Amino acid sequence: MRSDVLRLPPGPVDLTTFDAASAAGFPEDKDQGKEALAGLGAELAELQEQLFAQRGADHARSVLLVLQGMDTSGKGGVLKHTVGLVDPQGVRITAFKAPTDEEKKHDFLWRIKKALPGPGKIGAFDRSHYEDVLIVRVHEWADADEIERRYGAINDFEADLVESDVKVVKCFLHITADTQKERLLARLDDPEKYWKFNPGDIDERSRWAQYREAYQIALERTNTEVAPWYLIPSDRKWLRNLAIGVLLRDTLRGMGLRWPEADFDIDEQRRRLETEAPIA
Amino acid sequence: MRSDVLRLPPGPVDLTTFDAASAAGFPEDKDQGKEALAGLGAELAELQEQLFAQRGADHARSVLLVLQGMDTSGKGGVLKHTVGLVDPQGVRITAFKAPTDEEKKHDFLWRIKKALPGPGKIGAFDRSHYEDVLIVRVHEWADADEIERRYGAINDFEADLVESDVKVVKCFLHITADTQKERLLARLDDPEKYWKFNPGDIDERSRWAQYREAYQIALERTNTEVAPWYLIPSDRKWLRNLAIGVLLRDTLRGMGLRWPEADFDIDEQRRRLETEAPIA
Repeated sequence: MRSDVLRLPPGPVDLTTFDAASAAGFPEDKDQGKEALAGLGAELAELQEQLFAQRGADHARSVLLVLQGMDTSGKGGVLKHTVGLVDPQGVRITAFKAPTDEEKKHDFLWRIKKALPGPGKIGAFDRSHYEDVLIVRVHEWADADEIERRYGAINDFEADLVESDVKVVKCFLHITADTQKERLLARLDDPEKYWKFNPGDIDERSRWAQYREAYQIALERTNTEVAPWYLIPSDRKWLRNLAIGVLLRDTLRGMGLRWPEADFDIDEQRRRLETEAPIA
Repeated sequence: MRSDVLRLPPGPVDLTTFDAASAAGFPEDKDQGKEALAGLGAELAELQEQLFAQRGADHARSVLLVLQGMDTSGKGGVLKHTVGLVDPQGVRITAFKAPTDEEKKHDFLWRIKKALPGPGKIGAFDRSHYEDVLIVRVHEWADADEIERRYGAINDFEADLVESDVKVVKCFLHITADTQKERLLARLDDPEKYWKFNPGDIDERSRWAQYREAYQIALERTNTEVAPWYLIPSDRKWLRNLAIGVLLRDTLRGMGLRWPEADFDIDEQRRRLETEAPIA
């Protein structure tokens, strides 16, 4: 399994041409897929710990995982099942809801910058600054010039992040409208899922084609060399979780992480312990 | 396995009388202990999700897990292996280091209050406000009157938390000096662990008896009815992780959590989905 098959090619985007249920080189079978994700756990955990271990270094690296997708596409599921495979001490998760009154007073990137991962951490955004060119575009909550400005502002912002040692990994969780319908109905059928259901989700669903268009434009305009988009087939939950697991693994592998050298004299410290006064 | 056996009895505390390697009713065997922890996973995850699901309710509940203990006692291990069993979206972890210059300008509880878990969340503190009566007492970084004042301030603060629907669970991770020595030496023997070693830890170790005394006083003075202390035998890592897992499970069980009722008309929402206009 290789994550480069998930990378969105440059140029205009037509989401209807992308398969939401499979990816080349990935399993077709649920049990195999779940096993493959579990099999990633140990390596992911080690790579994450190496990332964390170098947090005190000059130019310490970090990772920012951006999750975008329609309601029920499974942003929360990825956080639980894939990001949940690594030590939670090394993870900073932020879910972006409708902006507060204070947040509205600032530029749209203000609250985003406050939520960035510190050195050595994996940050994960459940929705992000992309909402400001998605739901905002669909509802015309900002004028066309402002939205136009934002694509460039996002590209500049992400280029700055990459420059400052934050690896940016952007995932679009791609589902079909039929899958969303199934998942919304499933929430209505299960009293353990009522809390996840919001009648407003059906209102947004009625704007499906407008959201698709807004996504297509945003994906095309912000699919940069330094911070490209990945299309995650998300009609099957286990494939979605696995695909992002592989992408995260490949990202961390590509960073050339190593265990830091000792910055003290190992033998001297061992001697101190072995010759210490009795402790009672 | 019941967590009430871990509860510190009221009154003066003599840590030398507590077993750091076993607990009544808990397994004696490592494989059994690891299996038991894995067996807690599903229930812990469900309880945590129920806690999260009620976050929008009036008087939404949350949990604050406070982890204290000498270096190498395994605060990080508990976060990874026990807290790591639940969905990281529902968890807020804060590690308290030496206070920054800004933090020093404020009362010792200022930075603590900023790190409290939001409604529906499990907060976890790796070190906490207790450092201000522990390391600060051992090093005499504050005068005796100020430290005396802090025990009461801590009790008032924690009583306020409990009053405002935050369940406070305080764990002292109890290890022997011999175990600490073993673990420090292990860090010196393994290049994958050098980054966890700090020569200053050996300096602090030389004050073991003073730390024990500071802990004994702090535990006695802050072992309140509403926010009691639990003594976690931590000489064996798997027992420590399991004990805190059981404590967390019992805490969540005791909160009487249930899945929230639907706050919308289920049939109406189902009808909306089933009669919608075609989506393309």
